[in-house]
Amino acid sequence: MKKVLGVLGGMGPLATVDFLHKLIDETPAQRDDQHLPVIAWSVPQIPDRPAAITGNGESPLPALLAGIRTLKDAGAIAIAIPCNTAHYWYDELVREGGLPIIHIADAALDELRAHKMTGKTVGLIATRGTLAAGFFQQRLAAAGFECITNSDAEMDEVELPAILHVKRNELDAAGALLTIAVEKLIARGAGGVILGCTETPVVLDRMPAGLSARCVDATRALAKASVKWWKQHG
Amino acid sequence: MKKVLGVLGGMGPLATVDFLHKLIDETPAQRDDQHLPVIAWSVPQIPDRPAAITGNGESPLPALLAGIRTLKDAGAIAIAIPCNTAHYWYDELVREGGLPIIHIADAALDELRAHKMTGKTVGLIATRGTLAAGFFQQRLAAAGFECITNSDAEMDEVELPAILHVKRNELDAAGALLTIAVEKLIARGAGGVILGCTETPVVLDRMPAGLSARCVDATRALAKASVKWWKQHG
Repeated sequence: MKKVLGVLGGMGPLATVDFLHKLIDETPAQRDDQHLPVIAWSVPQIPDRPAAITGNGESPLPALLAGIRTLKDAGAIAIAIPCNTAHYWYDELVREGGLPIIHIADAALDELRAHKMTGKTVGLIATRGTLAAGFFQQRLAAAGFECITNSDAEMDEVELPAILHVKRNELDAAGALLTIAVEKLIARGAGGVILGCTETPVVLDRMPAGLSARCVDATRALAKASVKWWKQHG
Repeated sequence: MKKVLGVLGGMGPLATVDFLHKLIDETPAQRDDQHLPVIAWSVPQIPDRPAAITGNGESPLPALLAGIRTLKDAGAIAIAIPCNTAHYWYDELVREGGLPIIHIADAALDELRAHKMTGKTVGLIATRGTLAAGFFQQRLAAAGFECITNSDAEMDEVELPAILHVKRNELDAAGALLTIAVEKLIARGAGGVILGCTETPVVLDRMPAGLSARCVDATRALAKASVKWWKQHG
């Protein structure tokens, strides 16, 4: 069976497509067959992640593991998950799924370091589930950065509505709100901002260039890390 | 096992992503879980289709059938193939793959009729393999249209280089060449032009609006037809 990179997606579907696009962008290729062999499982009928994390809903873990098993049976030798929030279950997914998973926050940190961030304050745009999981904050602290996030009110009024707009494919509205969320973090001293929810970089091109240049696109970082992984192990 | 739409892709990878994007675009959805469950097999390591059709290379049929079997094992109940040229093997793929395949040319013809084409001359942008297969010309003739294509010289100098540029992710260069290919067909009397190679609509937004409005995007047509199929059978 052909070895492939497994993409565990569908959370949401547009973020998965954005990741697949960036995987192509980040692959040096002149011909079709120089691109990575990929199977993408994009099944959006998965229990709501933020609801599960806050104890208000069914766990998506069984559905995510079923996805990994399907990808493994189809030839996957490693998994990329273009959804930051799903990394809440990273340890269980690796242990029970039995495949290496390229961690999106490790990839984003690599990218942050490569950007030669000025200062040590980093803004983080992420869902409450990702913030509760804490994997971004832990990695940032270990690398000597201080992490700031939007306030509770900004999350409710700006950041979460931006994400919902992307899920509805309403990209102009999403871009306008994301711009505000990033501006707030920069005004509070962030030298750079990690877009740590895969819906958000989908509208990076709808932000003023001066702002988007300060952002680390975690989805693109995961794509870069996946191409690098495949070059070494694929 | 979760029922999914199987996407047999990777020919090329960017065309597959373009199709997945259009599938989302054509789905009326307010939330993630209203989008179609999809598994996309995007494995570009498939013997060259045009070379096989002209008798100068190995057949891709075994690789394509392996892809369909993988998708079937992963829960696919129908297949969409975002590659016009691969439809050369449509009958064998249906017969030996054992799943319904939504035909891209049927989808494009539906779209052409919906466009209320003026006149009866239709331009067709397609690879030599797709032209040799004849499925577009047969359907157009049956629907009362006359089909015109670029000349051999135009194919070599404009159309095929445009396709290769897309495969290299050189989209501006591809858009400029595709514009010329479409202009030639309209100058020869085409009332509309079918973009019957999935690389070409990737650069539709790089064409002058007056020209792109005359084009039928076969990839988007396949996405629409897939959403319609899923609504009835999924």
